[in-house]
Amino acid sequence: MHVIVDFTIVPIGVGVSLSGYVAACERILAESGLTCQLHANGTNVEGEWEAVFAAIRRCHETLHAMGVPRIHTDVKLGTRTDRAQTMADKLASIGKKLETNG
Amino acid sequence: MHVIVDFTIVPIGVGVSLSGYVAACERILAESGLTCQLHANGTNVEGEWEAVFAAIRRCHETLHAMGVPRIHTDVKLGTRTDRAQTMADKLASIGKKLETNG
Amino acid sequence: MHVIVDFTIVPIGVGVSLSGYVAACERILAESGLTCQLHANGTNVEGEWEAVFAAIRRCHETLHAMGVPRIHTDVKLGTRTDRAQTMADKLASIGKKLETNG
Amino acid sequence: MHVIVDFTIVPIGVGVSLSGYVAACERILAESGLTCQLHANGTNVEGEWEAVFAAIRRCHETLHAMGVPRIHTDVKLGTRTDRAQTMADKLASIGKKLETNG
Repeated sequence: MHVIVDFTIVPIGVGVSLSGYVAACERILAESGLTCQLHANGTNVEGEWEAVFAAIRRCHETLHAMGVPRIHTDVKLGTRTDRAQTMADKLASIGKKLETNG
Repeated sequence: MHVIVDFTIVPIGVGVSLSGYVAACERILAESGLTCQLHANGTNVEGEWEAVFAAIRRCHETLHAMGVPRIHTDVKLGTRTDRAQTMADKLASIGKKLETNG
Repeated sequence: MHVIVDFTIVPIGVGVSLSGYVAACERILAESGLTCQLHANGTNVEGEWEAVFAAIRRCHETLHAMGVPRIHTDVKLGTRTDRAQTMADKLASIGKKLETNG
Repeated sequence: MHVIVDFTIVPIGVGVSLSGYVAACERILAESGLTCQLHANGTNVEGEWEAVFAAIRRCHETLHAMGVPRIHTDVKLGTRTDRAQTMADKLASIGKKLETNG
């Protein structure tokens, strides 16, 4: 099952500077081979269900191994059976609507 | 890895009445043997990472098989390594604070 | 506009024990007169849009005043125009489906 | 209070094609004068608390006026008092960590 995910990880108990932990997760996602796109409030990830959730689990394991005692994560996920759709398709659909109905 | 999850599933493309789909997911979660607690905006689920995400995946598969063409799901998840904690523990901690600092 | 919200506040930079901060927010929500229900991963709140978001803002202001330097909050919110619906209605609908299609 | 938000709106009861509704919200956000960045699973918005939530409310009102009977929205929001931070700052911090610890 193909899934498009938005993933935000919030390390708790390691102070206010979180970018080093987010960068560690970016490397894990990049190594996973999944299509990823970082944005200001999380990372969009696209791929097969098992691969996506294995990567998210690896992020939790890695951050705990780096000394993060507690983690809060938000995942938004979308699946559809009516047609195949990528993250690029989603952005293209909205872009087309913005042009034509402007 | 033990995980506490809040899970909200939003079937898209099947009208505005969603309770039948939510009830189908409640049955899947109940059959999974995981500790679950339905609330007005989702369901709290607690257990081992793989079992929890397998149950969520089963909800997606089941709703698609029921004819839902598109699904949006929100998952909030917490893991911690400093101590074991259940959903009941979380509620008890807050309850204790409400009593003593009232 | 009537809104049903699920609200989860995550104080960052104050260690791993968060229940005191969650309890402070519970008191703010209780004083607001809004219908509220605490659960293991957040609080469900129901009321008029302005009152609900004013209460959430008050939670942020209060936690910052308590010394929390950074806050991450998740809000899920639902509005509908086809009919009036309360949080109790939502739970009752699912309950009825669980009984009849069991 | 300055807030950085990630906003995802899910119209319910109008079929599976949602891009026209998302485009309508993009126009509202653009007209609001707030700093916005669309991504594959939502839109990042930055500004003063009242202006940001007024824009989100306007999105709900507009979509209901377009005939959407039910809406589910996810908002992730961050505030901090230790220092001023923009969405561009967040991305720059992560980028710097990715370069130096690569």
